[in-house]
Amino acid sequence: MKKTTLLINCPDKKGIIATVTNFILAKKGNTVYIEQHVDRELGEFFMRLECEFDQDEEKLKLFKESFDKEVALNYNMHWELYNAEKKPKMALFVSKYDHCLYDILSRHASGELYAKIPIIISNHLDLKPIADNFNIPFRHIPVNRENKEQAEAAQLALLKEHKVNFIVLARYMQILSSNFVNHFPNKIINIHHSFLPAFPGAKPYHSAYKRGVKIIGATSHYVTSDLDEGPIIEQEIVRVSHIHNVQDFILKGRDLEKIVLSRAIKYHIERKVLVYSNKTVIFS
Amino acid sequence: MKKTTLLINCPDKKGIIATVTNFILAKKGNTVYIEQHVDRELGEFFMRLECEFDQDEEKLKLFKESFDKEVALNYNMHWELYNAEKKPKMALFVSKYDHCLYDILSRHASGELYAKIPIIISNHLDLKPIADNFNIPFRHIPVNRENKEQAEAAQLALLKEHKVNFIVLARYMQILSSNFVNHFPNKIINIHHSFLPAFPGAKPYHSAYKRGVKIIGATSHYVTSDLDEGPIIEQEIVRVSHIHNVQDFILKGRDLEKIVLSRAIKYHIERKVLVYSNKTVIFS
Amino acid sequence: MKKTTLLINCPDKKGIIATVTNFILAKKGNTVYIEQHVDRELGEFFMRLECEFDQDEEKLKLFKESFDKEVALNYNMHWELYNAEKKPKMALFVSKYDHCLYDILSRHASGELYAKIPIIISNHLDLKPIADNFNIPFRHIPVNRENKEQAEAAQLALLKEHKVNFIVLARYMQILSSNFVNHFPNKIINIHHSFLPAFPGAKPYHSAYKRGVKIIGATSHYVTSDLDEGPIIEQEIVRVSHIHNVQDFILKGRDLEKIVLSRAIKYHIERKVLVYSNKTVIFS
Amino acid sequence: MKKTTLLINCPDKKGIIATVTNFILAKKGNTVYIEQHVDRELGEFFMRLECEFDQDEEKLKLFKESFDKEVALNYNMHWELYNAEKKPKMALFVSKYDHCLYDILSRHASGELYAKIPIIISNHLDLKPIADNFNIPFRHIPVNRENKEQAEAAQLALLKEHKVNFIVLARYMQILSSNFVNHFPNKIINIHHSFLPAFPGAKPYHSAYKRGVKIIGATSHYVTSDLDEGPIIEQEIVRVSHIHNVQDFILKGRDLEKIVLSRAIKYHIERKVLVYSNKTVIFS
Repeated sequence: MKKTTLLINCPDKKGIIATVTNFILAKKGNTVYIEQHVDRELGEFFMRLECEFDQDEEKLKLFKESFDKEVALNYNMHWELYNAEKKPKMALFVSKYDHCLYDILSRHASGELYAKIPIIISNHLDLKPIADNFNIPFRHIPVNRENKEQAEAAQLALLKEHKVNFIVLARYMQILSSNFVNHFPNKIINIHHSFLPAFPGAKPYHSAYKRGVKIIGATSHYVTSDLDEGPIIEQEIVRVSHIHNVQDFILKGRDLEKIVLSRAIKYHIERKVLVYSNKTVIFS
Repeated sequence: MKKTTLLINCPDKKGIIATVTNFILAKKGNTVYIEQHVDRELGEFFMRLECEFDQDEEKLKLFKESFDKEVALNYNMHWELYNAEKKPKMALFVSKYDHCLYDILSRHASGELYAKIPIIISNHLDLKPIADNFNIPFRHIPVNRENKEQAEAAQLALLKEHKVNFIVLARYMQILSSNFVNHFPNKIINIHHSFLPAFPGAKPYHSAYKRGVKIIGATSHYVTSDLDEGPIIEQEIVRVSHIHNVQDFILKGRDLEKIVLSRAIKYHIERKVLVYSNKTVIFS
Repeated sequence: MKKTTLLINCPDKKGIIATVTNFILAKKGNTVYIEQHVDRELGEFFMRLECEFDQDEEKLKLFKESFDKEVALNYNMHWELYNAEKKPKMALFVSKYDHCLYDILSRHASGELYAKIPIIISNHLDLKPIADNFNIPFRHIPVNRENKEQAEAAQLALLKEHKVNFIVLARYMQILSSNFVNHFPNKIINIHHSFLPAFPGAKPYHSAYKRGVKIIGATSHYVTSDLDEGPIIEQEIVRVSHIHNVQDFILKGRDLEKIVLSRAIKYHIERKVLVYSNKTVIFS
Repeated sequence: MKKTTLLINCPDKKGIIATVTNFILAKKGNTVYIEQHVDRELGEFFMRLECEFDQDEEKLKLFKESFDKEVALNYNMHWELYNAEKKPKMALFVSKYDHCLYDILSRHASGELYAKIPIIISNHLDLKPIADNFNIPFRHIPVNRENKEQAEAAQLALLKEHKVNFIVLARYMQILSSNFVNHFPNKIINIHHSFLPAFPGAKPYHSAYKRGVKIIGATSHYVTSDLDEGPIIEQEIVRVSHIHNVQDFILKGRDLEKIVLSRAIKYHIERKVLVYSNKTVIFS
């Protein structure tokens, strides 16, 4: 039995659920779980469907073709079909902060993340020992104002070589070019250390401290060419008070960053995220 | 267009979703929203479905009959169909604490609760002025060890007279008899002022204080004949510390109780709760 | 025994605590509780001290004079002394939204707020029935572009007449002039329906919805002449998801607003707030 | 300047703060930060005081002696004085679960925990590779029904050899004997994977799932001879719903366990915990 995940969005219309579930039934599939959402303001329909087929790869290909012709075209669907048993490949981009890297690698080592990590890329050498301890290949690609274009070309080549499906910026302190981002649309997950849209840009903990907020946050989002403006995947917060200084904010924030980033990674791995209109639908 | 809510649970089986959505389509209904859950351990299927019909009451009755024959019987379904536009009638039971009563009545006055409140019943007269201010009928039925049976009979008569659909115990400090509870299975909502199953019974804030917990909670659940053992609808918590004494716990707890009880009431009103195996499925 | 609350801030220096506690001891006072904070960045010392005196009003006046001469001047202190048993007088400003008004009035009626409410002022008549039900005087002072100056003069006269100590803007939908604000520095508490500094200004729930945030918030702050920029007293948040539309945000936000505003009011009433450098120290 | 932390508790009485701060001033010390609490029910006074001395070790010893004679005896104080710059030594006890171990070791490697880890002790060999990666000595001491007494003797010998100050049970799946516990009173930190006092004992996630709770928790507490009954240091919770099965509870719980345990460890390291009457005062 092949476990398959089907993600669909299309303009809202009568009968979509019945049509899709009937089609799957007709192809000898079993719909195990369905989750659906309609954005009434935008008139858009979203669905995530887990189903099981007792078919081999060959027949699944035929299924895809006929689904496109018989269903998707009629409803003007954007759709994706995933083999739920195939582990996606994620690359980690890091700089000098180690807490998110430790967190991701130890979760991976514990079997908590259903993904492969073929490569860690960094503009610094500081975290190489950690990668080594966890036996993950580490590549040092320095980045500066002059070599940025070349550096990104080298990164893209590496990602291609390792057939990377998506990228996690685990406190990678560089801004990616639009060109780079366009190679991985809604496939680059960043962690920003503030409760966006409050405190975008650099040094958000310092700004939060200065403003005297009583709660700080962290935000994981897909990277777009607009800095810190991409679709938000997950956010979390923690209380602070006047007794905490910037260093305390940073320390408390580290735990937030780890939690929020790891949740976002899991949603992505489990194909629970649909992006539309610069927002995310997160299926449960 | 009649907005209708259909709640279903039955043993899990292939094809339920397709069957139900097809049936609705065939009856000229439009499935607007579907939410589904399968408890794999128990092998039970749950579904909440919002649909729209352009039918009058008469035809809806026929729909019910044919749904029963053509669908429900085959799957051994337990199902309920609600007219989503009809306000359910809730009775409030109170004693002397006023915070939950104020909260519910002011939410009701603000139009936040889609329900009617035909009657408030209390074993004390203390809260009558509040009921009067909000123009809700108030009935004083004293309860003591001797008259309990008669008092409950009087309460049941009142509830019948007002065609009450469900009961909210808004800090009603009396234990209801099994006989009473059996008249309203999964229709009596209680608020218990602890994070159940911790601190059941009387004086939970005192027990929590004595144990030195760092978090206190409140729990809303359906009343069963086992005290504080009914299916949990909603829980919420708030942090406490060594600086808080029992009075502080009680004060902080009041806000919890209000929030948790009002959420549970809303879930119930919007038919988002399915009870099974002494647990609740809460649709979103 | 007179319960007294002493609030102090001054440049940080050696020996402040010993000096102050010795002085109180010398005046036959008993320091019951002390809480202290030092902002190292700004080099500022903050202290809240609860003490008990068995003195009459006359002697307390002498205490104040000698404290000023013998202690405060040496340390360049800003200090305030409150009779902890005297209820402060708060005025409520409202417009059309009723949830915060209901919440404050029912807390007040339950004895939860240690304050008097001599007057409710509104630019609309909508909420008068609620004030009437709770037996609080209600004054209607319409405000428009033309009469704003006069309206504020009338408000100030009323506040003076009722010897109001502080003002609560319970979703009062008008911007106060700098002149008005200057009459009540750090004495006007506002509730803003977003997680400031995110989404200042009008329609924050709409903006939050549009941005696709996963958490919304509310912020209570003192009003300054810079809109939504005053010192933050309290913030709280609640999770939202793609299933919630703007109306859901507004409804969820109402509970936040009530909780956050009532907490801020309590901190203020209990003299637990010290404002410095556009931030608040909130003693516990 | 020697940074020193003074922890005091004693029966509540007039003048304690003035006496202690005066004494420190007289000994040329500077009280930097003071935090205080009175448990009115028990009539007990608690204080944590950070002060700075420009004295060498020798003189600090004399300070201790005179503090005992001149202050502590009069007030019947229980008190402890710590050199705040000296790192305490903590031993980790683990079994097979790796998430808490990874979390503690990566925090330690990042410099987040101000402590030394001279030894990791385990009844299994599974986690040795992790200890090796982080270069922490690992000792395997198998435990079974027959050898328990000997095993604990071996553990105690190791702890003595390494001059261990406190022990962290990082999901160590063995119950320690009263004899062992008595060697480290309020010095053994455990993480229990439920919101105590709910679900003590084994398999709390299974019990929580069965009961249908909407929130799960984790609790860190000092180990006493009563299982899961020791003084609670910290608790945290996370929401669950009907869609989560026991495996989801366990996975969500792991993040809780890490956060809660690491917070408890930090409080302990920073001498912010005072135990009294089977409860904790946690200074901020």
